[in-house]
Amino acid sequence: MKILIIGGAGMVGRKLAERLAADGQLGGTAISQMTMYDVVAPTAPAGAKFAVKTLTGDLPAPGETDKLVADKPDVIFHLAAIVSGEAELEFDKGYRINLVGTQNLLESVRHTYDGAVKKPRVVFTSSIAVFGAPFPEKIYDEFHHTPLTSYGTQKAIGELLLADYTRKGMLDGIGIRLPTICVRPGKPNKAASGFFSNICREPLAGQEAVLPVSDDVMHWHASPRAAVGFLMHAATIDGEKVGPRRNLTMPGLAATIGEQIEALRKVGGEKVVKRIRREPDPFIQKIVAGWPRNFDAKRAPALGFKAESSFEEIVRIHVEDELGGKIA
Amino acid sequence: MKILIIGGAGMVGRKLAERLAADGQLGGTAISQMTMYDVVAPTAPAGAKFAVKTLTGDLPAPGETDKLVADKPDVIFHLAAIVSGEAELEFDKGYRINLVGTQNLLESVRHTYDGAVKKPRVVFTSSIAVFGAPFPEKIYDEFHHTPLTSYGTQKAIGELLLADYTRKGMLDGIGIRLPTICVRPGKPNKAASGFFSNICREPLAGQEAVLPVSDDVMHWHASPRAAVGFLMHAATIDGEKVGPRRNLTMPGLAATIGEQIEALRKVGGEKVVKRIRREPDPFIQKIVAGWPRNFDAKRAPALGFKAESSFEEIVRIHVEDELGGKIA
Repeated sequence: MKILIIGGAGMVGRKLAERLAADGQLGGTAISQMTMYDVVAPTAPAGAKFAVKTLTGDLPAPGETDKLVADKPDVIFHLAAIVSGEAELEFDKGYRINLVGTQNLLESVRHTYDGAVKKPRVVFTSSIAVFGAPFPEKIYDEFHHTPLTSYGTQKAIGELLLADYTRKGMLDGIGIRLPTICVRPGKPNKAASGFFSNICREPLAGQEAVLPVSDDVMHWHASPRAAVGFLMHAATIDGEKVGPRRNLTMPGLAATIGEQIEALRKVGGEKVVKRIRREPDPFIQKIVAGWPRNFDAKRAPALGFKAESSFEEIVRIHVEDELGGKIA
Repeated sequence: MKILIIGGAGMVGRKLAERLAADGQLGGTAISQMTMYDVVAPTAPAGAKFAVKTLTGDLPAPGETDKLVADKPDVIFHLAAIVSGEAELEFDKGYRINLVGTQNLLESVRHTYDGAVKKPRVVFTSSIAVFGAPFPEKIYDEFHHTPLTSYGTQKAIGELLLADYTRKGMLDGIGIRLPTICVRPGKPNKAASGFFSNICREPLAGQEAVLPVSDDVMHWHASPRAAVGFLMHAATIDGEKVGPRRNLTMPGLAATIGEQIEALRKVGGEKVVKRIRREPDPFIQKIVAGWPRNFDAKRAPALGFKAESSFEEIVRIHVEDELGGKIA
């Protein structure tokens, strides 16, 4: 089985690659080669027993996606994106990467596999940003997509294209709407949602973190470990069972900032919580006000996707996976 | 007030132009000029007291939309589209006109009016084809968009782009999801929904018509006269009242084929009904099975959009507007 990860240098792409290297197989089929692609050089995971190629490039550049799929991977993970805050500030850049990049990928797959009996599974990471306020108390699977950001718009369009190309038999797509991934390891990125992770990661590592919103802000989370699980399940799930509605809201956990802080206190104590500094930011507040708070995601769990059941579990996964069990 | 009608040679575009010519104004403002554009030559309406320009061209061709909006129209009606049946058979052609054409138009407006205090109202005709089965008994305004045709996919993407460009202040868009327009005058077009009109229009004119689906097929209709009313209302409605959800399901009338035939019988008698020939068509049946049947459209009527209340009214409007009151 040949695997392509577009966006392989990102946090989720890297963790996915590490997991695939450790497993050596996906859905019971041995992996023979893996290509990791991104705008900056991806890092090949240590200890892979199959060939790993790392490539850099500009996804929406003419011919780029043709080259990427030329050796006909069996599974394509499309994780590459300009994140929400940046796509909102840089309109053209966001559309170029998030829309044109995705369009080009789908077109390249369509033409490269033309006539092939088996089409590749294309796993597209969408986002809960496809939903825009006002919301029902819990967003149900049939709720409409009226995004309030350009990022959410681009993801919603990607979903529509993925479903249409799949319906036409040009490829075999599954779109997964990721919750906000928390706790993100590493440095803050430009996502407007970064603070949800920052206020956990930095204090647990002995650093101060800025909280730009109030304690009653509720949001929808899953751990990086859960996100990798979603991707692997999306790569192997029976498309017939999913049916023509190929885009799924992933399960997750609704928590308020206050509940996040309580979970931090349980895991790390008062010294950790004291490292959170409140500094309201109207730009972030305005973006977050248009974001989902809670979901009633029924289809994805019924199809076997699994997430955490408490924020404390999310914090403990971070301490285990990223800090070797040690809190500063 | 300067008006641009893209898709001015189509049935709805022509009727809109005739109505604007007769009124001489739109929303209380005198019309100073009107441009009608299409891939085939539009016909200028008779008796207009303002200048009417007719243009032909290929909407998605590079530079085309720049030329169209160069003189900064105040209202742009974007009605041009490859219809559902044709877009389903010709994948590339459908995406080129329905997606690239719309994208280019929005980009041209964005750049041409850059810095202008007043942005143009862009009225985009979307479609109930943005919805895909399975449906609730009546499709509510918040139901999600999971189209089962490429045409519906392209319209759903157009809606998303229109809302995002509007949200960013680049233009002032209103998208209207038209019911199936019935009774369409003139010759059948390639729309898969054509038979809904054919079985009324042809028998009323003394001709035989083919019915490819069964009597219990229910669908959602509005007359051409109502469609023109929707467009004019969409051109003048206060955007603040509409809010960020710029795409609206228009009101309409749910009727089964059986109810259509009953209405025909009332208006034209048994001789008219006898001209309908049943000839099941699996290709049409499959497309129609994925289409909406009935709606609970609340927002649009609350915002002042009006449709017919019986299919008999729809038939009588056709006899009045198209047949000079005479039934063959």
